[in-house]
Amino acid sequence: MTGLFHVGISGARGRMGRALSQVLDARADVMVAARFDRGDQPDLSLCDVVIDFSTPEASAELAAACADRGGPALVIGSTGFDADQEAVVQAAAAKIAIVRSGNFSLGVNILIGLVEHAALRLPAEDWDIEVLEAHHRHKVDAPSGTALMLGEAAAAGRGADLKDLRAPAREGLAERSPGSIGFAALRAGGIIGEHTVLFASADESLTLSHSAIDRSLFAKGAVVAAAWVRNRRPGLYDMQDVLGFRQA
Amino acid sequence: MTGLFHVGISGARGRMGRALSQVLDARADVMVAARFDRGDQPDLSLCDVVIDFSTPEASAELAAACADRGGPALVIGSTGFDADQEAVVQAAAAKIAIVRSGNFSLGVNILIGLVEHAALRLPAEDWDIEVLEAHHRHKVDAPSGTALMLGEAAAAGRGADLKDLRAPAREGLAERSPGSIGFAALRAGGIIGEHTVLFASADESLTLSHSAIDRSLFAKGAVVAAAWVRNRRPGLYDMQDVLGFRQA
Amino acid sequence: MTGLFHVGISGARGRMGRALSQVLDARADVMVAARFDRGDQPDLSLCDVVIDFSTPEASAELAAACADRGGPALVIGSTGFDADQEAVVQAAAAKIAIVRSGNFSLGVNILIGLVEHAALRLPAEDWDIEVLEAHHRHKVDAPSGTALMLGEAAAAGRGADLKDLRAPAREGLAERSPGSIGFAALRAGGIIGEHTVLFASADESLTLSHSAIDRSLFAKGAVVAAAWVRNRRPGLYDMQDVLGFRQA
Amino acid sequence: MTGLFHVGISGARGRMGRALSQVLDARADVMVAARFDRGDQPDLSLCDVVIDFSTPEASAELAAACADRGGPALVIGSTGFDADQEAVVQAAAAKIAIVRSGNFSLGVNILIGLVEHAALRLPAEDWDIEVLEAHHRHKVDAPSGTALMLGEAAAAGRGADLKDLRAPAREGLAERSPGSIGFAALRAGGIIGEHTVLFASADESLTLSHSAIDRSLFAKGAVVAAAWVRNRRPGLYDMQDVLGFRQA
Repeated sequence: MTGLFHVGISGARGRMGRALSQVLDARADVMVAARFDRGDQPDLSLCDVVIDFSTPEASAELAAACADRGGPALVIGSTGFDADQEAVVQAAAAKIAIVRSGNFSLGVNILIGLVEHAALRLPAEDWDIEVLEAHHRHKVDAPSGTALMLGEAAAAGRGADLKDLRAPAREGLAERSPGSIGFAALRAGGIIGEHTVLFASADESLTLSHSAIDRSLFAKGAVVAAAWVRNRRPGLYDMQDVLGFRQA
Repeated sequence: MTGLFHVGISGARGRMGRALSQVLDARADVMVAARFDRGDQPDLSLCDVVIDFSTPEASAELAAACADRGGPALVIGSTGFDADQEAVVQAAAAKIAIVRSGNFSLGVNILIGLVEHAALRLPAEDWDIEVLEAHHRHKVDAPSGTALMLGEAAAAGRGADLKDLRAPAREGLAERSPGSIGFAALRAGGIIGEHTVLFASADESLTLSHSAIDRSLFAKGAVVAAAWVRNRRPGLYDMQDVLGFRQA
Repeated sequence: MTGLFHVGISGARGRMGRALSQVLDARADVMVAARFDRGDQPDLSLCDVVIDFSTPEASAELAAACADRGGPALVIGSTGFDADQEAVVQAAAAKIAIVRSGNFSLGVNILIGLVEHAALRLPAEDWDIEVLEAHHRHKVDAPSGTALMLGEAAAAGRGADLKDLRAPAREGLAERSPGSIGFAALRAGGIIGEHTVLFASADESLTLSHSAIDRSLFAKGAVVAAAWVRNRRPGLYDMQDVLGFRQA
Repeated sequence: MTGLFHVGISGARGRMGRALSQVLDARADVMVAARFDRGDQPDLSLCDVVIDFSTPEASAELAAACADRGGPALVIGSTGFDADQEAVVQAAAAKIAIVRSGNFSLGVNILIGLVEHAALRLPAEDWDIEVLEAHHRHKVDAPSGTALMLGEAAAAGRGADLKDLRAPAREGLAERSPGSIGFAALRAGGIIGEHTVLFASADESLTLSHSAIDRSLFAKGAVVAAAWVRNRRPGLYDMQDVLGFRQA
């Protein structure tokens, strides 16, 4: 990371946008060149990179606008793109560099690799997999996007797609289907974010967990992604690329 | 606990029945006088107490039979009685002493008291409550009976009924309702039984957990209940009575 | 808590002093009347209460000065008083109201009560007790003051003094002495503060844990203590008094 | 694993020896050809493999005796060999195949790989590592051999030797030395065996844990090792070889 670079914040008035402002303002090597939300008309020419935690709609619009201009590069933290929005982002990535991730923490991205590795090694007939996550009382969707990323890593380790293995939330009478991956979610107080992948056989269990200690965690990771993506050639990247795990 | 006493095992061929046999056979002060399952014709006159882990149907029949005879006393571990079965057990308890519980472990019964105490002290507007349980892959109902007992204790601490506070399993879009109590269940491998009650405010969390280490745990607790109930006057008791917590 | 009250911050440049400033500045009902450190000459007449997170030396000096003046009341968060310092604080408490605690969180103070309750109920010959705590890498003393408070509560539940039951850190060859209470400490990263009391028998375990989610937790609790103590008659109080648990 | 094979049990009267008897007696493809303890004169010619959970002294003697005879192969679970005993085992391994491990569970051996992987990826200047283990009240040494194996894996991930990074148990005043690896041990009740490696930075933590559910776990793993080693060429192997992880 060398030289001053200029960052735009999209979704600036949201929770993540404000956390980004704090993190960026504390860094000497970054200048915040624009803060905006959907409907604003930011001057994108001032930015080397825009970090965007808004909504899939706003993110798709922004990606198209940046691609039309030939820049700036993008870091996208929105999740839940529908097929049309997805197509827009994919098309934009032919012209600009985009990092998109459901979770920008180093620890979570390490965990994803460990989960895939363990799922590959632990025979599915003996070892069941369950994913548990806990978040603050204001989080309305469950399971979290990160829990699903962990489930996908577990499924990938077993050579399968999560959509074929995912079990519905366990409630009432429901026999565990062999090889399925279950999800459970807790919502309470101010829990920043905890994720656990449980592997259990008849005789032993392995538990791989991540816990966020400080809310600035995700903002800091997005800034790492921004520093990485600004001089990258066009393409759609994720944090596994940023952290250099893809080749591994 | 003084003198040899004679125990009958109802549901003898089930998982708990076999565990009971092992525990009872290892004790010098107990003689197993009868082992039977539904449809058998045991000689109840040989028993001071019958320990019954069968089904609500079989338990209700057994309770009626024991009440007709004026004994033996009963320890019932079956759960999920419907209104008719419940009425039969209640009527039987007018004539014989019955201990019924969803969980015979000392630790769980202590935990129930701690949860009620904490729920009473922690203001509902600041502190959310969630109950998590994990069991082996063969358990088909969720949440566990013990998880519901813990939820009831939490609700009681707040002067409410669990049925008014219980939230459905968190999946998809669902805002946390203030004051609600959520439940989550994991099913994997050979986990004997783990229960956690989580209290969390914006700034801190309190976690109260129980974990079974050895499968004989519940059988041993049922034998403690049997030793306690055999000379008791008629009535319907639970483990809080056996452990002397009711007066507390 | 009624009316504006005036608070002094002793140890203002320390970590807790700065956290207190943030919490107090955000409250409409409190005015920070003085910020000082050891060696400064604050005007104590401006303060209804002084909140003091400094060192035992500075706290003892401050207590003596406040007692001489007949006020203000004190909230002391320093720990590790020697016999002389202790005597000074005790003497001061004959003239002014002082709340002193090793931990101002509601959750920890609830946990202390739960631990004593459980230790009272779980027979010492069957159930071992261990205390585990984890803190950030900069914490230099172990076990934490709060871990020792929890150990004292466990010992009290068994009608004993912790000093008679405390086992040295487990390292090398060391048989567990029956009835002893062991302590273990982890130091890593930015962990704000986690405390766990483990009760385990041969067949089951009970785990009672507290976790701090936000660093402002302890500052907020100290402000609760300050609001409580300002109109109190002279005496040495702790958070169990503030929270109304003492009578329980 | 094909055909009936003949196993000897060394340390047959010990806790692990008895667990092995149970596991082996339940298998149709294994015959227990000899059960012995130190001082007995077993007929080693009857055995394809001997599984030995005794003491370093007895294990070294047994290894020498087997090497002299040119067999049988050995599975050694004893730990804590001194330099002389180590030399005897090494010399024996030039003539017979020996698997030696401090922990025969699949889960623990997977965990070792995950820990090394994570330690390699998480920068030592930001991420601290601590190892926690919990065992039953009768275990007299701390930290456990498995905890040390995990610590060695963490150190290896950082290109170092554990002996250069290992911190003494945290008690009293002790600043955390940057890059050090701390160990903590709990001893309580009947806990079969739990191991946790904690990685924590200022903002997040990663926790990798193993828990034994059933005491037969280690005996079963030793039998897997026995089936693997019986037709192996001379050499000193460990569970990473048995599980095919060495090439990875």
